[in-house]
Amino acid sequence: MKLDQMVRSVYPNLTPYTCSLADLPVEEMKQALGLEQVYKLSFNENPLGPSSKARNAMQQALSQLNLYPSSSGEAVQGKIAEKEGVLPQNVILSNGADEMIILVAQTFLEPEDEAIIPEICFVQYMASTYLMGATPVFSPMKADLSIDLKAILQKITEKTKVIFLCNPNNPTGTVIPADELQAFIKQVPENVLVVIDEAYHEFADGDGYRSSVELVSDFANVFVIRTFSKIYSLAAARIGYGMGQAALVDAINHVRPPFNVNSIAQAGALASLDDAEHVAESRRINQFGKQLLCKTFDELGLSYLSSQANFVCVDTGKDGQEVFDRLAERGWIVRKLTGYGLNSSLRISIGQPEEMKAFVEVFKEVLSK
Amino acid sequence: MKLDQMVRSVYPNLTPYTCSLADLPVEEMKQALGLEQVYKLSFNENPLGPSSKARNAMQQALSQLNLYPSSSGEAVQGKIAEKEGVLPQNVILSNGADEMIILVAQTFLEPEDEAIIPEICFVQYMASTYLMGATPVFSPMKADLSIDLKAILQKITEKTKVIFLCNPNNPTGTVIPADELQAFIKQVPENVLVVIDEAYHEFADGDGYRSSVELVSDFANVFVIRTFSKIYSLAAARIGYGMGQAALVDAINHVRPPFNVNSIAQAGALASLDDAEHVAESRRINQFGKQLLCKTFDELGLSYLSSQANFVCVDTGKDGQEVFDRLAERGWIVRKLTGYGLNSSLRISIGQPEEMKAFVEVFKEVLSK
Repeated sequence: MKLDQMVRSVYPNLTPYTCSLADLPVEEMKQALGLEQVYKLSFNENPLGPSSKARNAMQQALSQLNLYPSSSGEAVQGKIAEKEGVLPQNVILSNGADEMIILVAQTFLEPEDEAIIPEICFVQYMASTYLMGATPVFSPMKADLSIDLKAILQKITEKTKVIFLCNPNNPTGTVIPADELQAFIKQVPENVLVVIDEAYHEFADGDGYRSSVELVSDFANVFVIRTFSKIYSLAAARIGYGMGQAALVDAINHVRPPFNVNSIAQAGALASLDDAEHVAESRRINQFGKQLLCKTFDELGLSYLSSQANFVCVDTGKDGQEVFDRLAERGWIVRKLTGYGLNSSLRISIGQPEEMKAFVEVFKEVLSK
Repeated sequence: MKLDQMVRSVYPNLTPYTCSLADLPVEEMKQALGLEQVYKLSFNENPLGPSSKARNAMQQALSQLNLYPSSSGEAVQGKIAEKEGVLPQNVILSNGADEMIILVAQTFLEPEDEAIIPEICFVQYMASTYLMGATPVFSPMKADLSIDLKAILQKITEKTKVIFLCNPNNPTGTVIPADELQAFIKQVPENVLVVIDEAYHEFADGDGYRSSVELVSDFANVFVIRTFSKIYSLAAARIGYGMGQAALVDAINHVRPPFNVNSIAQAGALASLDDAEHVAESRRINQFGKQLLCKTFDELGLSYLSSQANFVCVDTGKDGQEVFDRLAERGWIVRKLTGYGLNSSLRISIGQPEEMKAFVEVFKEVLSK
């Protein structure tokens, strides 16, 4: 069998998930580093863990494991709709937000199409575009590394089918102010879909940010993606969702596999939406860690990006790989950004207060060398 | 926005998952029928429920919900490899077997390609082929409704990229004897991938069936799909897997999303593989129900297909829709096969012994009308 003749022509653009040190599960990080204690600040995970309501509901769900899950996840759809002021038919669930990005690509992208993606942005938009054989068109960032909407408008051609935005943006943490985003959408041709990935939505509370869900009723070409992996702390369970006009959601439902979201995740998501105190506590933890990081960076005279997410992107002023390695030797795993050409920057996820207090001491020590 | 101009050209071939009565969760079936008790024999679910070892392991997994799952699922890969006599690099995990079928299609199928699919077979092979814009070529069944390998060989053209087989076959329950399957694979051109979906593998113990995993080392173009949804009773959790040569698995890994299998399912699958007694008990329950069904059909003079799975396909000799409706009125939901042109046949999933004893009485009553 000649596999290289059998695989699709897009194959050279596709890369399997590679487990670099920062991508490993904690236990494997420990083994790789020969350390007993490792702190994983590379995945933007919520250190609080999920709501106890969610955990209880998931435990209950373990009693019916033999039955296939609800296909559409009606209960979760309904609760999200209520919370977000939309209708259940405006909501579609996915196996994490990752799958939602793929479903959008599968619904719209043909090989001759282009998808516009900010240069410094979550990598799955590019991967899903390549998966469909379409062409990702990368638009430059502003000088301050925030998303440049004017640059995106200039990249729109007859071939543009989708624009992917991440707001707050990963890995920068910056936001697009709501008024600028609305003005932008009015200028986007109506046959270009604007996907706004709001994975970090619940952490954002400033810099002019507002969710784009308010635009869904007026703009048929707006699709908002959310996840239960971040503020709700259910990354292990895999559940995300999208919101758009009913016709758009129905279109995406044509490519959604029948049982894409497991029952345990559905139960956890449903219960999570009822626990406002858990969300508030997650925000408090995040706020503490973010302030401590920023204060430390200020003291060290380092520049960093204003973050509305659960991580901070800092310019170490040194070789990022070197700082990464030194932190790793000490058991602290953060995210390098060399893939984006940000060779001196690191993205640091925010952990528990005690963890962050320890981290800033190690960080200071490492940077002083 | 003109959605019909934006969606991919394959769109007319794609259908969203429609919830007909037989597809609803039990609670919704009860509502739809206005009944307090409903028996769902339409999904080939395992009535025993999972191993207690699996349930315990899944409960443990609820303590680390905030962390992303292992991407490759190394622990499960390793355990499967050990059990099946292959290497970990021969194993790839998916969000149920459904996703594995999609991943195969995404790896190999281009719009100009053909995939050969037996006419009476699991519907997801067709759906995944259409999803990639390729053409499903349906090959006729033998007169006894088993899969006709000679007919498949005759359908192979220059355009054939994949052949999908289901063994034991859903919805017929029939198997392809191992020697016939091996002879067939020798005749298939080496650049045509033969996918053998063994979702019901662990229920099969006769009619010449053996798993095709024994062919993987000799044939680079053989890929075997399995699931934890059937004998292991973890349909709610969503985990399946595929086995093939390392290069083939690596190729499919290029299209696998980074965190496609949730941690809870991984924990349950791992523990399930350690519980041989649970598998044996599932088989005993299945054997009892199958024998009772077949004995009843014999008494009623009905013809049915020899099944190596956890369901039986019976020709009621009457209008299938009518028999289905009468059973449904009484709270028994089975599977119609009108979509396959089998207008007088029904597929009946095997439940608990007490359930099957009650079912055959209702079935006799319904058929006597």
